[in-house]
Amino acid sequence: MTESNLRERAIQLHREHNGKIEMVSKIDIKTESDLSLVYTPGVGDVCKEIEKNPEQLNTLTSRGNSVAVVTDGTAVLGLGDIGPGAAMPVMEGKCMLFKKFADLNAFPICLDTKYVDEIVAIVKALQPTFAGINLEDISAPRCFEIEKRLIEELDIPVFHDDQHGTAIVVLAGLLNSLKVVDKHMSQVKVVINGAGAAGISIAKLLLEAGFRDLTLVSLEGIVQKDEAWLNPSQKEMAAVTNKQNRKGRLKDAIVDADVFIGVSGPAALKAEEVKLMAADPIVFAMANPIPEIYPEDALSAGAKVIGTGRSDYPNQINNLLAFPGIFRGAIDSGATDITIEMKIAAAYAIANVIPERELAPDYVIPHALNQQVAEVVAKSVADEALKTRKQAVKTS
Amino acid sequence: MTESNLRERAIQLHREHNGKIEMVSKIDIKTESDLSLVYTPGVGDVCKEIEKNPEQLNTLTSRGNSVAVVTDGTAVLGLGDIGPGAAMPVMEGKCMLFKKFADLNAFPICLDTKYVDEIVAIVKALQPTFAGINLEDISAPRCFEIEKRLIEELDIPVFHDDQHGTAIVVLAGLLNSLKVVDKHMSQVKVVINGAGAAGISIAKLLLEAGFRDLTLVSLEGIVQKDEAWLNPSQKEMAAVTNKQNRKGRLKDAIVDADVFIGVSGPAALKAEEVKLMAADPIVFAMANPIPEIYPEDALSAGAKVIGTGRSDYPNQINNLLAFPGIFRGAIDSGATDITIEMKIAAAYAIANVIPERELAPDYVIPHALNQQVAEVVAKSVADEALKTRKQAVKTS
Repeated sequence: MTESNLRERAIQLHREHNGKIEMVSKIDIKTESDLSLVYTPGVGDVCKEIEKNPEQLNTLTSRGNSVAVVTDGTAVLGLGDIGPGAAMPVMEGKCMLFKKFADLNAFPICLDTKYVDEIVAIVKALQPTFAGINLEDISAPRCFEIEKRLIEELDIPVFHDDQHGTAIVVLAGLLNSLKVVDKHMSQVKVVINGAGAAGISIAKLLLEAGFRDLTLVSLEGIVQKDEAWLNPSQKEMAAVTNKQNRKGRLKDAIVDADVFIGVSGPAALKAEEVKLMAADPIVFAMANPIPEIYPEDALSAGAKVIGTGRSDYPNQINNLLAFPGIFRGAIDSGATDITIEMKIAAAYAIANVIPERELAPDYVIPHALNQQVAEVVAKSVADEALKTRKQAVKTS
Repeated sequence: MTESNLRERAIQLHREHNGKIEMVSKIDIKTESDLSLVYTPGVGDVCKEIEKNPEQLNTLTSRGNSVAVVTDGTAVLGLGDIGPGAAMPVMEGKCMLFKKFADLNAFPICLDTKYVDEIVAIVKALQPTFAGINLEDISAPRCFEIEKRLIEELDIPVFHDDQHGTAIVVLAGLLNSLKVVDKHMSQVKVVINGAGAAGISIAKLLLEAGFRDLTLVSLEGIVQKDEAWLNPSQKEMAAVTNKQNRKGRLKDAIVDADVFIGVSGPAALKAEEVKLMAADPIVFAMANPIPEIYPEDALSAGAKVIGTGRSDYPNQINNLLAFPGIFRGAIDSGATDITIEMKIAAAYAIANVIPERELAPDYVIPHALNQQVAEVVAKSVADEALKTRKQAVKTS
C-alpha cells in the first residue's frame, strides 16, 4: 500500500463505520420480565447487594473487566499535541486491541484538560467505573507525575503504555537477541538514543532486569551527571547510567556498544556509527515510520540483529505484545499495581513464546498479531502478582 | 414473580454475565493490513484529519453516537445515597436501553465525588469523548446546579433524566387522559404531590405546555408563597402555582382537583381524597413499587384514568418512553441543547403513538417496550431542534 493509498483507505474505513468500537448489551430485553431483571425493579436488589458487599462490583457489573484508555491528546503517536478529540482514533484502536487480545472492555477517555491535578482528580473519580487505567499519549514530564500520583492514590492497576509497554517489548527482544549473539546482559554495553519518557523507562527496566552498562543519549548529547541541560528525570538517570562517565554525542557513546536502542528520530544512526560498535551488534531502530537506520543499511554496516517499529521488516517491536496480557494478568490476579517484577515477567513471557531452536537474527520477537502472546503474558503477570502478594503476607 | 424470586434471579443474571454491557470492535483485525488501517500507521492520518477539521470527530470516531450516563450514586432509584459503585447496575441498565431503543453507545460514568464543582469539571473535560450527557440519580438540589452549569458550559445536549424524562412522560399521559375525559389543559386543576426534583420538573413542563392551575404539595404541606419551609426551588414555584393561594395539606389541595400526580411515596393518597376530586379524576400514582394509591382502590373511589410506575398495571409511566428518542433526536439534529420546546414535542410524539380511536381509560400511554416510540420521539425532537435553529438564524 502506498502512503497516500493508506491515508485514503484509513479515513474511508473510519468514516464508513463511524468509528471502530461500540457498546453492546450482553442480554437482550424482549419482555417485561427481562426488563424487570436487568432494570427496574430487579436491578435495585443488585445495587443493594453491591452496597452491602462492595467487592461484588467486579462480578455483578462489567466494571471488573473494564479498562479506561486515558489521554489528554498531548503526545499522540509522532504527531505531538493534537488535542483530545483528534487523539480519539488512536484510543479507539487501542480499545480494539484490548478486546481482541485480552477480551477486556476498554473505553477511550479523552480529556479536555492538560492540568496534572485535574487529570489525576478525574481518573481518581472514575475508579468506580474501571478496573484498570491505561495512560496513553500524554506528554513528558507530565506523564511521569500523573502516573506516579495515580499509582499512589488508586488501588487499581495504572500503566502508562508509552513508557512501560515499549520498555517491556524492548527487554523481551533483547533477551532473545542476546541468546542469538551469545552474550550476557550483565556484560553488554547498551546505548539508548533518546532520553525522553520512553528512553528513560527502557533504561530503568533494563537496569532492574540485570543490565549494568547503559548510556542514554539525548539530542543535547550523552546524559552525564555534570551536564547543565539535564532535566530532573535525566539527572536521576545520570547517577545510575554512563559508568565510564563519557561526555559527547552519540558517535562517542556508540564506540564498543553491543546494543543500540533508538527511541529518537529518523536517520539518527549512521552506518559508520554501527561500524564503531562491538562484534555482532544489536540495533533496535524504533523511530516510526522512518527508523534511526534502515535495516538493510544496518545489516551492510555489520549489525547482527535488527528490530524496528515497522511491520514490514522482521522483529517489529510493538507494544501490542505487552499491554493486553499485562492488564489481563493484573486484573485476573486482583493486583492493585503493576510492579517492576510483573513487567519483567511479561518480558520473559514474550521472549519465551519463541522456542529457542527457532531463534534467529530475524526472529527474536513474536509476531504482533500472535494471539498466544497475550495469554502467556497474562499468566506470567498474574503468577508474579500472586507470588508478590504471598510474600507480602508472609513478611507482614 | 415473587419479590424474593425476582431478587435472586436478578442477582444471578448479573453474576452469570459479569454485568450487562460490553465494548466490542466494529471491525475485525485479522491481518497486518487491517492493523495498519485501524491502528498505526494509518490511524495517524485519521487523527490529522480531525485535527484539521474538528467537526469530523463525530463521523470518523464513535464519539458522534456516544452518550455518557453520569452519576455520583447519591439518589439511586428509591435507595438513596448508595454510592457510585453500587449505582453501576442501574447505569448499565440505562446504557442497554439507550442501545436497544435508540442505537446509541451509552457508557456508565460512575463518579467517586459529590462535589458539584468537581462533577461539572469532570463532565466538561469528557466533552471530547461523548456527544451527549445523561445525568442520572444525582440528589437534589445538587442535580439542579450541576445540570444548569453543564448546559451553560457544554455545547452538547445535557439532560437530567430523573427530572425531565418523568415530566415528559407525565405530560404525554396527561395529553391523552384529557382527551379521554374530554377536558382541556387550560381549565383543569392539577395537584402534584411531591415537591422535589421530579415534582418541580413536572410542574415546570406542564406550565410551559399550557396548563394553568397547578398546586404542589410537599411533606410539609401545600407550596404557598408565605410558608417558611420553602426551599429556593419551591419558592420559585410558589410564585407561579397555587393560584387560589391555598394553605394546608394534600386533603385541602385535592378538593375539586381534576388531576393528581404522585411523585411522593407509598399510600400517600387516600380513597376518600380521590372522592373529593372533580368529576372523572385522573390519578397518576407513580411511587414505586408501592404507589400513592393502588389502581383498584382509586377506581373504586371514582378515578377515571389511572397511571402508575408499575409494569403490572395499565398506563405505566416509564421514562424509557422518553430518553432514548430524545437523545437520538437531539444528536441527529446536531442540537447543542435539549430545549423546553423539544421536551414538549417529545411528549406530544409519545401521546400520538396511540391512535385517537384506541384511546381508553386504561390505554393513555404506549407500552414501555413499544419500539416505535423512540423513533417518533427522535423525529419530533429533531424536527423541533431544526425549526428552532432556523428561527434563530432568521432573527439573528
